[in-house]
Amino acid sequence: MRIAVVGGTGDFGLALAQRLVEAGEEVVIGSRDAERAEAKAAEIGAEGAANADAVRDAAIVVLAVKAEAALATAEGLREAIGGTPVLSVASDLRFTKSGVFPSDEERSIAERTQELLGAPVCAGLHSLAAASLAHGRADGDALVCGDDAEAKELALALAAKVVTGRSLDAGPLASARALEGLTAVIVNLNKRYKGHAGVEITGLP
Amino acid sequence: MRIAVVGGTGDFGLALAQRLVEAGEEVVIGSRDAERAEAKAAEIGAEGAANADAVRDAAIVVLAVKAEAALATAEGLREAIGGTPVLSVASDLRFTKSGVFPSDEERSIAERTQELLGAPVCAGLHSLAAASLAHGRADGDALVCGDDAEAKELALALAAKVVTGRSLDAGPLASARALEGLTAVIVNLNKRYKGHAGVEITGLP
Repeated sequence: MRIAVVGGTGDFGLALAQRLVEAGEEVVIGSRDAERAEAKAAEIGAEGAANADAVRDAAIVVLAVKAEAALATAEGLREAIGGTPVLSVASDLRFTKSGVFPSDEERSIAERTQELLGAPVCAGLHSLAAASLAHGRADGDALVCGDDAEAKELALALAAKVVTGRSLDAGPLASARALEGLTAVIVNLNKRYKGHAGVEITGLP
Repeated sequence: MRIAVVGGTGDFGLALAQRLVEAGEEVVIGSRDAERAEAKAAEIGAEGAANADAVRDAAIVVLAVKAEAALATAEGLREAIGGTPVLSVASDLRFTKSGVFPSDEERSIAERTQELLGAPVCAGLHSLAAASLAHGRADGDALVCGDDAEAKELALALAAKVVTGRSLDAGPLASARALEGLTAVIVNLNKRYKGHAGVEITGLP
């Protein structure tokens, strides 16, 4: 499938794109700056384009821009994305002296993105750090949630290609509140134990 | 240490108490009904008492009542608990046709409990199902968060006794937003894959 990674020149987006290229997928990296996208894409064997061009023929769009830009970027790409399924990976974190806090918002970035777009939105990959993904498939399982069954199948298939473990359906899009918050937990664990935490789900057949 | 389990006659509280007794801890089960607490406690080799009596000489109080009763119970025990560290384990879930939703509240039950009490509140054990805990230590790791370092050490020590894996410090109390939400993810995973999901953190030394 053709996968567009919006914000694909960032650390996470680029590492994700690289793993997807390795898995044999057709990947196009999007950036606000088409030339930058092309240059970065060339490094990993992907295509590069301005965000709006990148998403146009994609089977699925990964919104891999930073949390603070996620909603504005989604809104700007509303027409270009049309009905194409979207995978939101951003987490809204607040860095404080006493640790990393999850979002103060009631609803997740993914749910708010869903409201902005006509497309079905899923959320996932929040427990994968760019640093882990940069060197190969990330350790552990991927958790993906969403309200649209078909879009979620696509997102689960994509996620399965970038982790060593399984790609798991974590329920409705509202689960993104927990999955986005989990990033704060992981960052806190990494600080405390000086590691690269990932999540593995035990006890499933 | 002497551990009080408020709501210790419920499925989760009783299973937790049983594991703690097995680990050699002195456990007192609290219930609104002292007789019921005593009867249940006798089954597992713990003490039983009315909630307010149960918490009085405890080193740590586990608030194991259901989410809908957690805040009212904490408020009612405010004086009896005094400055004793509290471990909040409740998750506010909403069951819908399309799956289990995490809370609509900005803040976690644990943070709201912290505001009600004079005692330092931690949160944890959200990824442990009563059904898993009922038959022995729960598979996977326990995640514990809190703002008070001493209280968190106690809660981590308690949590370490009831899981097969590790007891991990997940950061400030605000992490409870993610940990409580994780229960929704786990319930959704259990439904979808017909298992008893637990969480294991990979990538830490």
